[in-house]
Amino acid sequence: MEPRTPLKPGSTIGILGGGQLGRMLTMAATQLGFDVAVLSPRDWAPDARVAAHAIHARYDDAAALKRLHELSDVITFEFENVPARTLEVLAELGADVAPGPRALACTQDRVDEKRFLNDCGAPTVDFVAIHDASDIGPALGALGGGPALLKTRREGYDGKGQAWVRDPSEAQAAFAAIGSKPAILEAKADFVRELSVIAVRGRDGDVVCYPVGENTHADGILRTTLAPAPGYQDVQAHAEAIARKVVEGLDYVGVLGVELFELADGRLLVNEVAPRVHNTGHWTQDGCLCDQFEQHIRAVAAWPLGPTEARASVRMENLLGPEVDRWPQLAAQANARLHLYGKGEARPGRKMGHVNWVLGDVR
Amino acid sequence: MEPRTPLKPGSTIGILGGGQLGRMLTMAATQLGFDVAVLSPRDWAPDARVAAHAIHARYDDAAALKRLHELSDVITFEFENVPARTLEVLAELGADVAPGPRALACTQDRVDEKRFLNDCGAPTVDFVAIHDASDIGPALGALGGGPALLKTRREGYDGKGQAWVRDPSEAQAAFAAIGSKPAILEAKADFVRELSVIAVRGRDGDVVCYPVGENTHADGILRTTLAPAPGYQDVQAHAEAIARKVVEGLDYVGVLGVELFELADGRLLVNEVAPRVHNTGHWTQDGCLCDQFEQHIRAVAAWPLGPTEARASVRMENLLGPEVDRWPQLAAQANARLHLYGKGEARPGRKMGHVNWVLGDVR
Repeated sequence: MEPRTPLKPGSTIGILGGGQLGRMLTMAATQLGFDVAVLSPRDWAPDARVAAHAIHARYDDAAALKRLHELSDVITFEFENVPARTLEVLAELGADVAPGPRALACTQDRVDEKRFLNDCGAPTVDFVAIHDASDIGPALGALGGGPALLKTRREGYDGKGQAWVRDPSEAQAAFAAIGSKPAILEAKADFVRELSVIAVRGRDGDVVCYPVGENTHADGILRTTLAPAPGYQDVQAHAEAIARKVVEGLDYVGVLGVELFELADGRLLVNEVAPRVHNTGHWTQDGCLCDQFEQHIRAVAAWPLGPTEARASVRMENLLGPEVDRWPQLAAQANARLHLYGKGEARPGRKMGHVNWVLGDVR
Repeated sequence: MEPRTPLKPGSTIGILGGGQLGRMLTMAATQLGFDVAVLSPRDWAPDARVAAHAIHARYDDAAALKRLHELSDVITFEFENVPARTLEVLAELGADVAPGPRALACTQDRVDEKRFLNDCGAPTVDFVAIHDASDIGPALGALGGGPALLKTRREGYDGKGQAWVRDPSEAQAAFAAIGSKPAILEAKADFVRELSVIAVRGRDGDVVCYPVGENTHADGILRTTLAPAPGYQDVQAHAEAIARKVVEGLDYVGVLGVELFELADGRLLVNEVAPRVHNTGHWTQDGCLCDQFEQHIRAVAAWPLGPTEARASVRMENLLGPEVDRWPQLAAQANARLHLYGKGEARPGRKMGHVNWVLGDVR
């Protein structure tokens, strides 16, 4: 990896995607003196409203991509389902895109991702690629019987595009439930808890990780992160070693989230990898001097990485849909740090904001 | 003071002024889910670039003020020399402006400000109003002889519009040096150190203060703040009592900075008051859970005020003019939190950014 000259304040950072992650990246970039240019298919997107330049266009709009490239000294993304073709077009224009297209392509396909993880020595649950409903029965046998989780190979997030399969008789229905698309069947992980580690790799290959967090999900959507996780000292080195293999294997630049299953015997399996700032890293905003958003901007701008130590324990809680209506009570709690995303309609399950409960000194 | 309904996230906060204080206020408002509308006479102003709505117009542009009012649920300012007439026009339109016109008018005139301070029991240095150069000799006598500091009554900041007068023979030259304008002659404060306290008053009359900071100036420009100030426990109650008199006397809403002289005998004199977020409060960004920018937004939005305890000691250092070129070294220091303002030309003395050195636990 070649060392690069750090990007000067006053330069412009391009962001593909218009959501809350881009909004928080924009604020971090602003603090460091950068301008931001956002390209989003959504009008009045949460981050476009705080960016110096907002381009309202589809990801396949060639003229808009050219405009983004002309405005930007480096381009990143807040959303891993940006079409791979978008990054190719930007690369053909000569844009400096970080993380690179390889990381995006690899993590857009769940089978490719798990193969990559196993190849680079990051263990996962057992899995079988599924092309058709008829593959599911034999795959279930290969995985030692049900239940197993059927997921679309591509897209799907927050529990969408997933179905449990308990026995072969459910194969047809499960395949139909996920839209009859190419899929992956994953063995059920018999985990004792869900952890995650937020890693960041600089342009110079420097890698740092935040303390491991402990996560809870409901209906496939993250509800809470407690960080540092209770007893994190016992798993930190192990989790960091896995994260390091991933970011080095992808020749990655920026922040990457690694979701882990902790098994009863102490093993850690990678559940999934997200090539972007990650919901389980939001606690760093109030728990660390330098949060994951600033780290990502530092990495893509070829700045030195910042410190990752926790200055406090934090319990992050997502505010989904109408839960955001709790804001008056939360605003009155001295240790509740409120982060709201500026989204209009509070549809059930939609991430409207989060609260970081600052719990005091690291335990 | 009437209790008000807290402003809902998704509402719009108007800001008069386009500088770094507005930029940091905008980011705080964004975090809480608000949109921001900025009116600034400067094009491509540091805060206009991160605001959802930017109005590029003069403060006396009636159509622009009407537009700002139409966009905004509440309007505040980041700059105390907004013309009083601007706030009157907004008030005539029915705008909710906080802090109110009275605080702005009072602090725009140094003689009015000192009279107000003394009237409400906040001690200052002795002073005499100066209408003409011929007033200076007798005033110097009334103040017990020179040196004394001649300042324009209105405008002037960061040491501009000031001249020292050592004896009556310098009266003509000093008056000419400040532009032959109505002035104030202030006795020299024989202080041992310069302190400040950042106070905030909510819509419901609640008042909280941050720990007192210790400041150093050079050529009339703030260079550093160390906060909490060494031995702050000994002066905190006294400083807070003064700040409370000021904000209650002005029926103030929002953050207000009170600069203090600490005398050898322990007395505190008010040097000046700024009806806005204040450079000596920038340390709170990295030293407190809720910084002065969020506090100001909370106050004007009728939210409950946030906590003001220091979670760490911080030494804030302003980056003036070409000092901002130190950013590569500062970016590499783990405890140096860099805040850059997105300004173009690094003219000598211009505030380009600041760094908060996080020094660890509060001493």
